[in-house]
Order: sequence, then C-alpha cells, then structure tokens
Amino acid sequence: MCGIFGIYNHPEASNHTYLGLYALQHRGQESAGIVSSDGGHLHHYRQMGLVAEVFSREVLKKLPGKSAIGHVRYSTSGSSELKNAQPFVVDYAKGMMAISHNGNLTNAFLIKSELESKGSIFQSNMDSEVIVHLIARAKERTFIERVVHALKQVEGAYSLLLLTEKEMVAARDPFGFRPLVLGALKNSPVVASETCAFDLIGAKFIREIEPGELLLINEEGVHSFKPFPTKPHHQCIFEFIYFARPDSFIFNHNVYEVRKSLGIQLARESPAKVDMVVPIPDSGFPATLGYAFESNLPLELGMIRNHYVGRTFIEPEQRIRHFGVKIKLNPVRELLKGKRIVIVDDSIVRATTSRKIVKMFRNVGTKEIHVRISSPPITDPCFFGIDTPSKKELIASTHTVKEIQRFINANSLNYLSLEGLKNCVKGEEENFCYACFTGEYPYPFQMKFD
Amino acid sequence: MCGIFGIYNHPEASNHTYLGLYALQHRGQESAGIVSSDGGHLHHYRQMGLVAEVFSREVLKKLPGKSAIGHVRYSTSGSSELKNAQPFVVDYAKGMMAISHNGNLTNAFLIKSELESKGSIFQSNMDSEVIVHLIARAKERTFIERVVHALKQVEGAYSLLLLTEKEMVAARDPFGFRPLVLGALKNSPVVASETCAFDLIGAKFIREIEPGELLLINEEGVHSFKPFPTKPHHQCIFEFIYFARPDSFIFNHNVYEVRKSLGIQLARESPAKVDMVVPIPDSGFPATLGYAFESNLPLELGMIRNHYVGRTFIEPEQRIRHFGVKIKLNPVRELLKGKRIVIVDDSIVRATTSRKIVKMFRNVGTKEIHVRISSPPITDPCFFGIDTPSKKELIASTHTVKEIQRFINANSLNYLSLEGLKNCVKGEEENFCYACFTGEYPYPFQMKFD
Amino acid sequence: MCGIFGIYNHPEASNHTYLGLYALQHRGQESAGIVSSDGGHLHHYRQMGLVAEVFSREVLKKLPGKSAIGHVRYSTSGSSELKNAQPFVVDYAKGMMAISHNGNLTNAFLIKSELESKGSIFQSNMDSEVIVHLIARAKERTFIERVVHALKQVEGAYSLLLLTEKEMVAARDPFGFRPLVLGALKNSPVVASETCAFDLIGAKFIREIEPGELLLINEEGVHSFKPFPTKPHHQCIFEFIYFARPDSFIFNHNVYEVRKSLGIQLARESPAKVDMVVPIPDSGFPATLGYAFESNLPLELGMIRNHYVGRTFIEPEQRIRHFGVKIKLNPVRELLKGKRIVIVDDSIVRATTSRKIVKMFRNVGTKEIHVRISSPPITDPCFFGIDTPSKKELIASTHTVKEIQRFINANSLNYLSLEGLKNCVKGEEENFCYACFTGEYPYPFQMKFD
Amino acid sequence: MCGIFGIYNHPEASNHTYLGLYALQHRGQESAGIVSSDGGHLHHYRQMGLVAEVFSREVLKKLPGKSAIGHVRYSTSGSSELKNAQPFVVDYAKGMMAISHNGNLTNAFLIKSELESKGSIFQSNMDSEVIVHLIARAKERTFIERVVHALKQVEGAYSLLLLTEKEMVAARDPFGFRPLVLGALKNSPVVASETCAFDLIGAKFIREIEPGELLLINEEGVHSFKPFPTKPHHQCIFEFIYFARPDSFIFNHNVYEVRKSLGIQLARESPAKVDMVVPIPDSGFPATLGYAFESNLPLELGMIRNHYVGRTFIEPEQRIRHFGVKIKLNPVRELLKGKRIVIVDDSIVRATTSRKIVKMFRNVGTKEIHVRISSPPITDPCFFGIDTPSKKELIASTHTVKEIQRFINANSLNYLSLEGLKNCVKGEEENFCYACFTGEYPYPFQMKFD
Repeated sequence: MCGIFGIYNHPEASNHTYLGLYALQHRGQESAGIVSSDGGHLHHYRQMGLVAEVFSREVLKKLPGKSAIGHVRYSTSGSSELKNAQPFVVDYAKGMMAISHNGNLTNAFLIKSELESKGSIFQSNMDSEVIVHLIARAKERTFIERVVHALKQVEGAYSLLLLTEKEMVAARDPFGFRPLVLGALKNSPVVASETCAFDLIGAKFIREIEPGELLLINEEGVHSFKPFPTKPHHQCIFEFIYFARPDSFIFNHNVYEVRKSLGIQLARESPAKVDMVVPIPDSGFPATLGYAFESNLPLELGMIRNHYVGRTFIEPEQRIRHFGVKIKLNPVRELLKGKRIVIVDDSIVRATTSRKIVKMFRNVGTKEIHVRISSPPITDPCFFGIDTPSKKELIASTHTVKEIQRFINANSLNYLSLEGLKNCVKGEEENFCYACFTGEYPYPFQMKFD
Repeated sequence: MCGIFGIYNHPEASNHTYLGLYALQHRGQESAGIVSSDGGHLHHYRQMGLVAEVFSREVLKKLPGKSAIGHVRYSTSGSSELKNAQPFVVDYAKGMMAISHNGNLTNAFLIKSELESKGSIFQSNMDSEVIVHLIARAKERTFIERVVHALKQVEGAYSLLLLTEKEMVAARDPFGFRPLVLGALKNSPVVASETCAFDLIGAKFIREIEPGELLLINEEGVHSFKPFPTKPHHQCIFEFIYFARPDSFIFNHNVYEVRKSLGIQLARESPAKVDMVVPIPDSGFPATLGYAFESNLPLELGMIRNHYVGRTFIEPEQRIRHFGVKIKLNPVRELLKGKRIVIVDDSIVRATTSRKIVKMFRNVGTKEIHVRISSPPITDPCFFGIDTPSKKELIASTHTVKEIQRFINANSLNYLSLEGLKNCVKGEEENFCYACFTGEYPYPFQMKFD
Repeated sequence: MCGIFGIYNHPEASNHTYLGLYALQHRGQESAGIVSSDGGHLHHYRQMGLVAEVFSREVLKKLPGKSAIGHVRYSTSGSSELKNAQPFVVDYAKGMMAISHNGNLTNAFLIKSELESKGSIFQSNMDSEVIVHLIARAKERTFIERVVHALKQVEGAYSLLLLTEKEMVAARDPFGFRPLVLGALKNSPVVASETCAFDLIGAKFIREIEPGELLLINEEGVHSFKPFPTKPHHQCIFEFIYFARPDSFIFNHNVYEVRKSLGIQLARESPAKVDMVVPIPDSGFPATLGYAFESNLPLELGMIRNHYVGRTFIEPEQRIRHFGVKIKLNPVRELLKGKRIVIVDDSIVRATTSRKIVKMFRNVGTKEIHVRISSPPITDPCFFGIDTPSKKELIASTHTVKEIQRFINANSLNYLSLEGLKNCVKGEEENFCYACFTGEYPYPFQMKFD
Repeated sequence: MCGIFGIYNHPEASNHTYLGLYALQHRGQESAGIVSSDGGHLHHYRQMGLVAEVFSREVLKKLPGKSAIGHVRYSTSGSSELKNAQPFVVDYAKGMMAISHNGNLTNAFLIKSELESKGSIFQSNMDSEVIVHLIARAKERTFIERVVHALKQVEGAYSLLLLTEKEMVAARDPFGFRPLVLGALKNSPVVASETCAFDLIGAKFIREIEPGELLLINEEGVHSFKPFPTKPHHQCIFEFIYFARPDSFIFNHNVYEVRKSLGIQLARESPAKVDMVVPIPDSGFPATLGYAFESNLPLELGMIRNHYVGRTFIEPEQRIRHFGVKIKLNPVRELLKGKRIVIVDDSIVRATTSRKIVKMFRNVGTKEIHVRISSPPITDPCFFGIDTPSKKELIASTHTVKEIQRFINANSLNYLSLEGLKNCVKGEEENFCYACFTGEYPYPFQMKFD
C-alpha cells in the first residue's frame, strides 16, 4: 500500500508535503520521498525509512519551489529497494517528470515487455515506471493529452500524481480502487490519499476526485477531465475495514463511523455471552467499541500496550527469544482471571498473531476467549494495491472457520457476513470491491510475479 | 522519575535486565544503563536515549555475568547529562559497587557538603551518589551492615538496588514512597519497580518489598532485614493516577482498576450533560472508561492518534510551525460537529496541552467541551521523585478552577475531590502521600536546588 | 575522474571488487558502487561516500555471485547526486546490464536528445547512460555486437566495464584517453583503471587493454575485438603528472618514474639558487625528489602534515575561521627561518592553495620562496574525464606567469615547458593528449553544459 | 600517551582548545575531551574517538566560558573506556575542578589504596584521579597550595593542567619526563604538550615550562612556583625519536632537526652498500632523509601509501584476509626489482610490522633489504607515559639483533648505538631518560598492574 500527497503553488511546498506524508505514514512505512519543482527544474530526495527519519531540515531546504509531490511506500509491486522508492523522476524529450502512484497495474508486465522490445530501459521493477514510459513515448501535444494516452493503455488500480516543471496532474482509475481527495490550503490546491493529511496542514477538504477523473493543475487553476468510458466502481472496502485512518473522510464516508458500524453489525450477527469486551490496542478499536455498544457489554482495557515499542527492538539471546507480540502487549491479570471475554479484530490473514494473543489471555487465567472478526474471511489475494500474501498463505483459503478457531485456540470464532459488510455501506454496496472475500475480481487479467 | 530492575544468579542476567527496562521505559526516557557482575568484576554501559536505542546485541555481549541491575531515568535530581545516568559504578576500598535509585533524598545536599568537607569528591550531581559515599565510609564488617549504616543517615524517597561482585541489595525507604516488587524467574530472584517487568520476562510476582525493608540477595538466598523504626507509610498516590503502567500490580492494587475507579468516582461527583465521552489517546483512558461507564454515556473515539509519531519529528520552516499536539492527534470532524462532549484527563500541570486539545475540538465545531480531571488540583511540587515543575509553574497553585477553565476555554472544568481520591483506596487511605494536592509533606525538610 | 574495477568467475567477486576500489579511491571520492552477477540476476549497491564508508560486511554479503564490477566517482559529467553514482544498472529486453564508466563523451547530449525524441527516458544526467540506451536499442544478435554498435555512435573518452548476467565486456576508446589494464587472479580475469588495484588483491598484471580494443570475458575465456578504425592515440598526460598513483603501471610506464623525471627535467630548465628543496606533503613528492636530485640540493621536510586530518573537520566560530590548508600543514619554523627554498608542485589550477602555502612559509620567516611546477600552465579545460573547472577559472588562461607569481607572492615561478614534458615520454610523445596545455583538442566537437 | 592543551581568558576558549587538540591528535586517538569554565561553573564533554569526530559545532556551543582545558588520550594507565577519558571533572568542598594529565604515576595504586581505606570512592581506573583526591583532601587555604600539597605526594611523570571556576594551574614533574610549553594568543596564556598546537591557532611560543615548575594562571596573570627540591632531569628521549610532531619545538630543540640528526648518526655508524634509500611513508621520514643525506645515497619513493586508508576498513571474507600493512602500503615494483635498498625505521617493538614490510619488498623482487633503526634496541617497558607493551613482548628484550634480523628476514639490521643517540643531544645528554634502552629507571619503584 502507499500514500500520496501533492501541493501546487505554495511557497512552503516541500514542507507541507513532508507534513502531508507524515499524516499518511500509516499507508506505507518502507520508504518516503518528495519531488519539488522550482518552475524550471525538479529536485528530489527519497530514502528507505519513515518520513521523520528520511527528512531533516537540511534535506527539505534542498527541495525548493512552489510545487511538490510526495510518496510513502509499502511495497506491493517491486521489491523493497531504494530504486523502487517513489516519487520516480525522469528526464525525457519534453523535460522532467515525476510520479507518485498508489495502486497496482495488472498489465504492467505485458507493457514492459513490449516497451523493452522497442529498446526501452527500465530502472526499477515498479509497475509505476511503465506509465512514465508510455507518457514519454506519447506523441500528443500537451502533457495532459500524453497522460491520457498513457493511462488508456494501463489496466488496474491507480491513484496518482504527476509533476512536471510547470504542471501537476492527479488521476484516479475508472474503477476507483484507491481513494484520492482534493483540498485547498488557502488558494493552493492540495491532493492526498486521505483527508487526514489536509487536517494536519490546515487545508480545507473540497471533494473526492472521482473514479476515472483527471485533474490538470496549473497556473490557470484546476481543470477536470473525464476521458475514459464509465465503468462500475470498485472502491476498496478494505480501506474502511482496516487501512485508512479513522479520522479520514474517503469514499464519501468518515472511516471511523463505518468501522464502528461493522462492530455493531457484528454484534447483531454473532453475539457472545461474556463478562466484558476487551480491545486489542491499535487494532480494530472502533469496531470493538461498536460491538460493546450494541451488545451492551462493558468495555475493559484488559490488554495494555507498551508505548515505547520502536522498530529497533533487538531480541537478545537464544534462550529468551520469540517475543512476538509480547513486547508490545501485556494482559491485565487481575482483571481477566476467571472471566469470559470477547475480542474484536478487523481481519485474520495468517492467524499467527491472533493465536499468540489468545495464548496471552489464556496464560493469565482468562476463562473463555471469544474472537469476532469485523470482516468476512479473506480467501483471495488483492491485485489492486493491498499487500496481501499469496492465496496459499491466507488461512481462510484453505481452512474452515472451525479449523481456524481451533488453530487460534479460541472458545468461539465468528466473522462478519458479506451481507453484513455490505449492509454497512447500504445503498452504495455496488460501488465497492469485495474480491478478497469472494475471489470475484472486477475484470479478467493475467498476473506474472517476479 | 526512574525505573529499576535487578536479577540475581541467572545465565542471561543482562539480557533479562534489558527486557525488564524495556517494560519500565514509561518511568524514564532520558537515559538507560545496565551493570552486570561476573562474580569478580562489574561491567557497565549507560547512555542517553531509550532502552532500545542504547542497547544493541553487541553492547549486551559486553555485560557478562549472572547478576545485573539496570536503570531508566527521567531526571528529577541532577541535570540531564550522561554523568547523571545510572547505574552509578564506583571503586572503593572493598571492591566495586553499583547503584540504581528511584526517588529523591531531601537531605542529600547536606550530607554532600559534610562529606566534601572531609575530602570526598563527587562525580555527578545525583543525590544517589551520597548513598554510595556513605557506604564507602562505613566501617561495618559486612556489606548489608554498611548499607544499613548509610541508609540510616539519608532522608527521603528511595527504592534502590545495589550490586557488588557477589551480592545484591534491594531497599525501600520507611515511608515507602516508590514501589518495589520481588519476583522469581524460576529460581532466580528478580526485583523491579513494577510487575509489568516481570510479565515480559515471564517471571512470577512474589510480593511487594515492604516500606523500610532491605533484601540481601546472595548465593544462599534472599534475606529480609527491617533495621529502621517503623514510620507511617506515604506511598505515592500519583503512581495510581498517572505514573505506573495500568497492567502493573503495585501498592497492593492493580493500577488499571484503581485508575478506572477514579473515573467512576469523578462521574459521581461531577456528571455532565453531554452526547458522548471522548478519550484522549494515551492519556487517562482507564479513568475515561470509568467515567463513561458510571455516567452511562457512549464512548466515542473522537480523537485519533497518529501511530507513527516519533521523537525525531522536525518542525519545518517558520511559517508552518507550532504544531504542538497537532502532529499527534486529530479530531474526527464528522463525529463531533455540533456535539457536546466530556473529556477526562488525569491531571493538569501547566494547562497548555489541555488548552490546545480543547482548541482542536472547537476547530471542528464541537458544541460544548466539558473537561474532567481524575485527581485534585496539583498545587505543590513533589520532592520525592516525581518530576513536577516548581510551585509557581503549577497553574493550580495560583489560579482557581474557574480561572483554569477560562484559560483552557472549556465549557466546564471539574477536578476529583481529595475525599473522592481517598475513597478509591478506601481502608488504606492513610498509607498514601497526597502532598502534591495539599502541600502537607510527611516530614519537615529543607531543600536546596542547583 | 573515476576508477573502475571488474573481476570474472571468482568465488569472492564482490569482496575483491571492494578491495580493488579501495586501491583506486584516489580516482574518485564522491560515491562508490558494486554490481555483482550470480549468473541469473544482477545485485547492486551504491552510495555517496568513500569505499570504506559505503561498504560493510553486511552490504558485501548482499552482493553474491562470481562476477562483479565496481566504480568510484568524482563527478565530471552529471551532478553530485546518488542517481549519478555508478555502476548504473538497468532492465532491458534481453535481461539486466550494468555499466562502470571512466571518461566523458562529447556527443552524449546530442544522442540523448535524439533518443528522448524517440521516447526514451533518462534516469540520471550521466553521459554513461546513453551507452546503455544505445545497447538496449541495438538489434544485433549477441551482446558484444550490440556493444560495438553502441560504441560506434559515441565520441569521446571511455574506459568502461559492462556486466550482464553471464558476460563481462571491457572497452577502451580508440584514442585511449583513460588507462585500462588487464590482469589475472589465478585463473580469474580482472580489469582495472590502474595496476595498483591488482597489487592489493595479489593479481598479476598481464597487459594494457589497447586503445580501441574490446574484451569479451565469458565462460570460454577472454576474447579480443578491434572493431574501430585506428586513430592516433591521445592518452591523458595528466595521469602521469598528477592523477594516477605513483605505484601504478599505466600507458606502458611506471608512474613514479615518469613523475620523477618531470622534476629532473624541471630542474634542468629552471634551476634555483636556494638552500633547500621542501616537498609539500602529498603533492608532487616524486617530482620534488627529481628536482632535488638533479639540482643536487638538500631535501628538507620543512612542511609537516597533520596525519589525522579527516573530512569531518568543522571550522568553529567566526572569529577563528578560514583555516584552509593550515589545518593540514605546518611549516617547521626553526628550519626555514632566513632560508631560501624551492617548492615543487604538479600544477596550478586556481592558484589559491599555492598562495596560502607561500604565505605560510613567509609567516615563519622563510627568506625566499621559489615555486616550480612540473607541468606547463593549464590554459584549457579537459572534456575527456578530468575535473578541471571552466576556462575562465583557470588562472593561466587569463594571467601571465609573471602575474601568477605576483598573485601567489613567490620570489620566482617557473613551469615545465611543453617540450620538456614531451621529453619525459620521449619516443611516445605523439601518443598523448596535451589539450589542457594547448587547447588543441584531438577532434572537433560541440559541448553543452547543464 | 596523551596530549593536553589549555587557554585562559579568551572569548573563544573551547573553540581554540578544539583546534589545539586537533594539532595534538598524534599524541592520542582513543578519546578526546574539553572542559570549559564560564567563571562560575565547569562544562564538559568527552567521548571515545578522534577530536574531529567527538566535537561538532553544537557540542562546542555547549562549552561556554573564557577558559578551557582539553585532552586527547591513548591509554597507558586505565583501560580503554569512556570513564577513563579526560579531562576528569569533579565536585568537591571548594567547588569544581578538572584535570588533564599526560604521564604516569608510579605510586598511584599505593595512594589509591590508602585513600580508599579512608572512605574515598574512585570513578575511574586512571592514576590521574588520585591527584584530584589528594587536592580535595588538602587543608591548605589556596588552590595552588593544595595542588602543591598533592603533587608532593605523587611520584612519576606528569605534565598536567588543572582548571577551576576561576583559575588554571599548569604543572610539570621535577624529572620533566613529558614536554609542556607556554605560549600566548595575544594576551591570553596558552599551555600545550607541543608547540604545533600554538602554530595552528596562531599563538606565540614563549618558553618551556620547566621540570618541577607550576604556573598559576588567574586574572592577575601567570605566576611561577618551584616548590619541589631540584632533581636530575629525565626528559623522554623517545619524544624525539618517535612521538612528538617534527614541526614541534620541545625540550629546547626542534624535533625534526634532532630526528634528522639521528639518521645522520646512524649512517655514520652503520653504512650500507645499496642502490637507494627508501622511506616507509609516515614512519621515520626525517631520519631516513638524514641517512640518505649522510650516505650520499639517492632517496627513492619505493613504497607508496594509499591516502584514503581510514579506520573503518573492514577486512572482507576469510579467504582474502590478513592484509595488515598491505592495505596501506604498496611497493613500486619497476623501481625495486633487482635493487639493493636501505630502509630506516625509528624503532622496533614486536617486529611484526617490520617483517611484513620486508616481505612486501621481497615480493616485488628487491635484491637486498637492509634495515636501519634510528634508536637503540628497546629492551624495557616505559613506566612514565609511553604505551610500550610488557617486557616479554619487546622482541629486543629476549632476542639478539642477529635473531631479530633473521625474524624480519632482512639482509642486515643495525640499531643506532646509545652513544650515538646521546651524541644527537650533545651537551644535554644527562637531561634525558634512556630507561627503555637500558632498564635503568631514574628512581626505584614498585608497579602494580590491573
């Protein structure tokens, strides 16, 4: 998954992009980058690491100019190397151009082979690079026309930003897989994956960029283009379930409210006879709240998070290894002993973490542990930007709910039904993609993996 | 404030101390250190920074031996410099000795002057160093006797660990200001500030070390000494209100349960006519839960925390400065607009953060913001280990509750009453120190500040 | 300037490349990189910094395989950015390919424009990138044929190494501007800019790669190709004067011996009536020795170097700034006071350093300072790989020798004559390029600067 | 060995101390530190590492005030740990005090035991710490009197600087083992181990501080004290042979001139029938020059140094290990093949490096290698500040010259005679210590090693 941000015509362009990426950090922690334009030249910096690690005041000073785009990445296409960090910047016949892309193209490898057979050279193994090559080879007169020409050839998910010396283009694929929102910081247009980026810099949310819409942003303003034939929308329901920040407004909803309603629906479908509902810190809290509210069960903070867990923890010697989640979480023994509890999580991928958490509760004497999942079983991989593992690693693709319950050693396990899920976006349920729960992808395609 | 940890006779002594300190990180983030004994020599390492930053596998390898003590520090006495990091290690006539100290001595400067007039030299400006000097000058035959001789001369708060080549001593002052607990990892005795350190390494909690008790831990086992005349206990109530981790068991209680009961009591004393209770992430969540529960008001996650806020955030250029809490927290506009809310915090020190939080809620259109504080107004500084600022910086020492309410721009502000606070530790209320709320210190003393 | 190194079919390929680059560090200190082939895939790592800083044991472990090429860079074409660091690696229709290039192409910008007009995209602003594009677009059947096709289109200086999954190609332009030598480590072919790289890894020097020669190195051995029409050789005389390491053997000579003979020739042309010859540490020592020897003057170490000068020296506050060379060098007052001395340097570019050095000698009471330069005045920039500044910054392009003498405040200043220079490579003088002294470039070309 | 520097009453005190230490870096590369006084308080910073690594502009800003002392250390007493880095700073009854010490006390461990038995605590295992304790326990009225009282009790080598809030004291032991010089930067007194530190900051050399002299430097000026009974001088001859920088003036001589005269004397005593003299870079160059001059033999740079050898070189995998000096030095094959050479080194300690160097010459076909050492065989350890290994590790303590010649595989080996050495300081030969060549220590003492 990735997060993107752009701002046009603001004297503090790269500083605001830094802040925007900071707010979007949950969408990608592997690398971060910014490209700015001073009107005549693009300047860029990208590194592996978190936004706050990658950028210092000195680095930001070297990104001058009034326009900038940025990117945070968690690899879905392309390996985890600096060369795959974005924004990606190139020289071509008409000047310089940079791209920030969130999503995944399903025909990238086909286009790449074709372009290579004509002599093109690829620097990265990101699918985003093919878009840039297609633009560079386009013969159209204006930049926006060349972009349209290029995007007509690609297939899949993209919410993207392009920056040249003078212009910025924002685009969202016709299916609308990934979110993309437009805002304004005073008179400067801003574009971001989620509205939480606007809140941090004090920008106003204007509207979503529509599926299939392109915005050309230049000195004359913001111009909308809709050059593609209309397609049914397939917005990623998983953004609501897990990915987006709860304070964001995307796909026409506040994420927190949708997420809480998943818990409410779950409580209706799968109630539990227990003494309390225990949230697992930083994982599905809104759904947990909804579950407790609807069940009229007391919420108790029975699992405490260590606030100082960083990425640098070094597991010491062999005899005391395998801490897993233990370093992050600790159950409150006095509260849990002899009690029956429900825990609510957003999803189960491989089930190993759920298993460890149930074990931690058992270790302090919890009598019954009932697990509720605020989404249906994930049976199929995502090819549109979410970093799910291959089908065979998805426990629900090969195990029944009963088997998973046994594996994680819970007293009961229930998932939200697909119908229940759709009920939470009632009236718009046809506009979302549920392929990871159904295997019904929105269109046929062929995938090739590196 | 500080956290201490020790383990005796375990082949992975320094590794476990590392983990113990990791679990105690909330008690001090300024510096971290470990001293180990290989039976003949003490090895040590200490640095400014978090436990996970200070220690690497390589550093831990240089701390061999079967016994170790560690320390995490947030300065209360002594300035923030490496020389004041602990454990403090010295050579003296009988060999080597190290100390880890949590607390603050009120007569340290008097003893220091006296020792210096006899020719003693001080390396640090920590009050802990006087204890070491007193031990070194003691003429008693055994180490434990020399420790008793030294501790009889000091006055104030101390929960401490001493390590020599062969022995470990744990001691808690007669008033019992700071917590100190005894556990066992299989057959190895462990001592820590809080039980959460035991949970992480899988050690069993045995009992609290009593106020005025010393434990001598050596090859023959754990020996208890109570050499001081009994005094009324003055355990720090603020450990329950704010400082200790909710999953710890100290002062004979689970912290979470006491903290939640503060919120319940607060709701009884100061109800509010509102639409919802909104927790402020990582600040007073248990009390907030208690308040919502007792008030029968819905809890809503109206303020979202950015999970990736690190210590390295660099505020960029001048025009977009002063982010304060904004970088960490963001209100959910859609949820709050036009609503009346209660927020519960544990305490107000200077009131600047509360003011910013109220402002953030106002900015998204919250109609009424009622603030409840789960402790009485802090009017007086702590001289026993909590890092409160000087009296004049405590807003409640010079302003009425009404004035504070106006300063933070809340629709109402209420504190928990002192009686209400005592009610939450009913039956034991005489065993706690309330000096920061009353100015009634447990004994008369004279303080000198650097 | 740059240094390149390659090794084929050796189990420690990247380790030896690391060492080879270490020995070639004097040819470029800005960035370093290695690409290795494991037979099926290219692995690479490059960073800004010195070889010893860029590579650690961990990094070298991530460069597996039996073939590797490396590069150290001091920018001559392209700005000082990571994207311009080499080796440069790309994906193209036939697989992967990497390039290490020393030299400068004079028609790169023309080819780049042409390729871009056909839709090619450029990642860097190095001229080396055009070679890669030309290879990728070539239709020839074998790799070596495609390389020949590409090199036939470029004009200028190149000593280069290409690596694919299975093969390595070494090539030197028909003029032979830059050195390139072939050696063998047991049975593994090695190629380097200078023989000093062979000495460090214990490889045997076999022969120079000839101007216009290509070597195809694959599993069947080393194959020589000479596909270009013969041209007069223009080997860079400046490699002898300053650039190459004195212990290297290039252009059919040991560098030290040529360099010493420059000093001998200089002493014949421009003797001086002085008390002693004083070498300036790390600058022209061999020529100084030759001068002293031929003049029969005593050599005295009158200028001492601080051995611990690193790149990290931070000039402190304002009042004590502008240390320049002072931090590196200090004259021996007792030795110099009242004495007449000669100092010999290899060249004068902007004359600012020479001026500071003369001043330091004056400050300790040296009576006369005579400066001798072991090459003719540099009047014209190099377009073939040496990093000289633009013509107007070259003091000798706009000032007479007398004026330069006055600027640096020397009692006399003499340069080696062009004839004298040629005399030191007698019999082969027609094989060298003297353009920086004469402005007579070997062929006409048009340059475009970024 | 160590280097010390101090400056009094200068607005850029710590910046100049930084530069002074930079110039003295050759005297110690293990740790560096500075203590400054702002008139009321001492500020300090010390770390493991080189001066340029330890100090940044930020660190220097935190060392305010008009007086400062500094220290660079290569451990002779005390292990290599941060706690043993100097300057050492303490609080005592009269305020704060810091010490920078070059030298070694032979009765430190006796005094330490005695002080510890009275209750003193030691922080480090440096012998310098006992001086500070003795000063702290002294009852005299003024600081200089207390210093005299303390120094009367210690035995051994010390050139030292003491700094209090208001005063600075410089002292040199009665034997005068280590150098110490006085200078002035305009009106500010400066003190340093060697004059090269004065040259860098532009200070004027005034005079040596005499053996047994103390200087009290305060607001009223510089006051000389000679409180000790006169003793025969024992200035360290090894400072001339190897340790001091050639551009320094110490012990009444310019180091370069003495060092060159050692080579001249050596040539007279032990001539060689060879083709050339080859200096080994950065080791005994002045003596080599003297040897070549006196022998009338050509000097040839037959061994080339890699200028970019840093401390960070990582020897790669096992099969290509054991580079030793090879990474630093490379012989010039073409020059040496079939030749007979002399190499001159300053001393032989363990003989392992000499052996490797001879081997490198042999590998390129050098016909004969004659080794000359510009000092007598080192047979006994130094207890006065030079970091020589224990007696049994000194090859000359257990092997004859013939045996050493065989070990290093030289065609001949000759040392300078003791008489020859004395001849180079003729007229003052009684003022130097030759104990490392003779085992005749200036006074009887008992040593205890950690």
